[in-house]
Amino acid sequence: MNAEDVKGFFASRDTLDMEQYLVLDYYLECVGDIETALAHFCSEQSTAQWKRVGIDEDFRPVHAAKVIGLEIVEELSQLSYPVKHAETGKIHACRVTIAHPHCNFGPKIPNLLTAVCGEGTFFTPGVPVVKLMDIAFPDTYLADFEGPRFGIEGLRNILHAHGRPIFFGVVKPNIGLSPEEFCEIAHQSWLGGLDIAKDDEMLADVTWSAMADRAAHLGEARRKAEAETGEPKIYLANITDEVDSLIEKHDVAVRNGANALLLNALPVGLSAVRMLSNYTQVPLIGHFPFIASFSRMEKYGIHSRVMTKLQRLAGLDAVIMPGFGDRMMTPEEEVVENIEECTKPMGHIKPCLPVPGGSDSALTLETVYRKVGNVDFGFVPGRGVFGHPMGPKAGAMSIRQAWEAIEKGVSIESYSQSHPELKAMLDLAVARK
Amino acid sequence: MNAEDVKGFFASRDTLDMEQYLVLDYYLECVGDIETALAHFCSEQSTAQWKRVGIDEDFRPVHAAKVIGLEIVEELSQLSYPVKHAETGKIHACRVTIAHPHCNFGPKIPNLLTAVCGEGTFFTPGVPVVKLMDIAFPDTYLADFEGPRFGIEGLRNILHAHGRPIFFGVVKPNIGLSPEEFCEIAHQSWLGGLDIAKDDEMLADVTWSAMADRAAHLGEARRKAEAETGEPKIYLANITDEVDSLIEKHDVAVRNGANALLLNALPVGLSAVRMLSNYTQVPLIGHFPFIASFSRMEKYGIHSRVMTKLQRLAGLDAVIMPGFGDRMMTPEEEVVENIEECTKPMGHIKPCLPVPGGSDSALTLETVYRKVGNVDFGFVPGRGVFGHPMGPKAGAMSIRQAWEAIEKGVSIESYSQSHPELKAMLDLAVARK
Repeated sequence: MNAEDVKGFFASRDTLDMEQYLVLDYYLECVGDIETALAHFCSEQSTAQWKRVGIDEDFRPVHAAKVIGLEIVEELSQLSYPVKHAETGKIHACRVTIAHPHCNFGPKIPNLLTAVCGEGTFFTPGVPVVKLMDIAFPDTYLADFEGPRFGIEGLRNILHAHGRPIFFGVVKPNIGLSPEEFCEIAHQSWLGGLDIAKDDEMLADVTWSAMADRAAHLGEARRKAEAETGEPKIYLANITDEVDSLIEKHDVAVRNGANALLLNALPVGLSAVRMLSNYTQVPLIGHFPFIASFSRMEKYGIHSRVMTKLQRLAGLDAVIMPGFGDRMMTPEEEVVENIEECTKPMGHIKPCLPVPGGSDSALTLETVYRKVGNVDFGFVPGRGVFGHPMGPKAGAMSIRQAWEAIEKGVSIESYSQSHPELKAMLDLAVARK
Repeated sequence: MNAEDVKGFFASRDTLDMEQYLVLDYYLECVGDIETALAHFCSEQSTAQWKRVGIDEDFRPVHAAKVIGLEIVEELSQLSYPVKHAETGKIHACRVTIAHPHCNFGPKIPNLLTAVCGEGTFFTPGVPVVKLMDIAFPDTYLADFEGPRFGIEGLRNILHAHGRPIFFGVVKPNIGLSPEEFCEIAHQSWLGGLDIAKDDEMLADVTWSAMADRAAHLGEARRKAEAETGEPKIYLANITDEVDSLIEKHDVAVRNGANALLLNALPVGLSAVRMLSNYTQVPLIGHFPFIASFSRMEKYGIHSRVMTKLQRLAGLDAVIMPGFGDRMMTPEEEVVENIEECTKPMGHIKPCLPVPGGSDSALTLETVYRKVGNVDFGFVPGRGVFGHPMGPKAGAMSIRQAWEAIEKGVSIESYSQSHPELKAMLDLAVARK
């Protein structure tokens, strides 16, 4: 690419109709001349060959991705990670803002992914280390997406749960229980105060616990728990399955008694999530398998924030994500960013409920609440409810007691003196130390 | 976990009915006691809590993932990549073989992905650095998958192309041409000798080149080229789109004249690939956007070999993958492994055609052929055909001439003396030096 060619991939933001562009934020490590590397980077993800041989034309003004911002962070003595590559020269770490014309692919998630984290992005000469840090969408692009059908308000209305977190629990043991056994402990957890008893992300429709059977048992138990407690409850059934059976799984699960559905978003694919969100009669909740495989490296891959945005765009009413604490190996600021992405303004797209999870219990609720900074979150213990030494009902009670203590401004230690279920969790923590 | 608990996650292979297990090969960096870390690793991806409180039961014999092989590679002074984590202690790099009972999830791609590269895999205490290196499937598990419908033989039969590579070309400019313009240069490339003219992975159904319209033009041009050359030709249409429109896109594209279909496998999701492979009337060919985001790091993420296997399992008749040379930033042995995975014995699953790609032209064909080691591959230039200085017909001719030279055992330099299209490519390379 000569100097004149390079220019076609740079623009200033004020010369572009930004409603026609997505704004992409990348961390890049460029080898050799920075502008040439960036021009290649834009070219590879859009108009790789921008004219026919022998014809005077240029597809770049309309179709090229264009650099609209560049910050050279530092010169590096070597790439942050060893990568086989061809170029030689100085290495620079850069933050680059790119305007990519969405007419290249349209309002379709698979085509969007192809453009922003596809071959062009990861196979550009001179750019061996790449992390897609963020995407921003203009309102005209968002207008073609439906987003969450229920959102936070819809979930709260179903549960009559306002002004507090939503209390989920992952039924454990997650694998091996028959539907009858599973049902019994889920029922106990509702009686103890859970809003939502959920299937583990690993448990779906299996020979030893068929979805239809499990949903029937859980649906009956849910209605019983609702009658016993006077409160609405949700059985969140994991219908993660091959995409050509998702609609049928939705129908069977909902008909039999599930009143919210779990999808492992990346394993089924974000487009399958969107398909189901346009069909579902009940809230859809996403879980995070697979995402860590491309988001954990600080300077390579795709930032988890991008996936949170896309899950919301695809129509999930709640997004379960790696939460706080060393257990989930995610920097605190990244967890906070992911939580914020669920509720930030996003055109007409409704907010979805962030559910930061990972080894939670009554003892972590206050920390999570303080870090989130408000009540709009889901709290999702597993063993913290179902491994409680006094059983799942007590486990759920311990969570609600911890919330009562927070609301009253009392320490859980002091509140536990009159609440044995909470005290049992404190004692267990002491015993494990 | 105490020492007795740890034992439940170890087994020797000869005590297990291996038809009931997938065999997973991981690279792990363990912090602290290795066996405890590995027991947690197995526990988190299967029976996280293997009994109910107060009940004497153990789900591990049937449902636990179990370590069946361990090689401690070396002690490390620090993790290969910085990761926030809680554990302290010595760090060991290990290769671990795990038997995971497939009854936990069944013959379903999303559930399989959830088990082998989900939350458990990437969020195990003491195992902050993880790469899934390989999966092996027992025949009983493979029996529930359909695999490629056409496979290599099917593709060869459609094209009457035997005993040689299949010659693909990515029509360029990839973005911006109208269907009429696109059609004209594809037609030229068929006349020059391409078997398959294809849409770029970035080009799908867009406002400025509707799939129905493009397929109609290309179908007509294809039939014309077939009449003119006396050889069968393929127009490979990229129907990558939201999954709920893939069947409709298949029908429109095939009815209008496409006779093979391209899917960006990870962007639509492997399960959507499987859905379409069970429906399609024509060969399905996969492209590789997104995969590099989790496969490029040597010691973190998921090895590309796993994705090649899963794409074949999902039913792709050909798999386009990053090929040889520094341009594609993939170690040569990894490219070779991915090529081999396409044709290795895999139960009843047919071989699929490997298509290693990346900046190819007449000048790289011999190298690719020697490295592949046989003729069962697809060759897929883009600019090497459509950026040829004498035009796309000459570009395609140069590829076929390069193959003729190989067949005759003549150097391309010598063969180019009587073949101006080949000579033009050699001259171009000299001019660019």
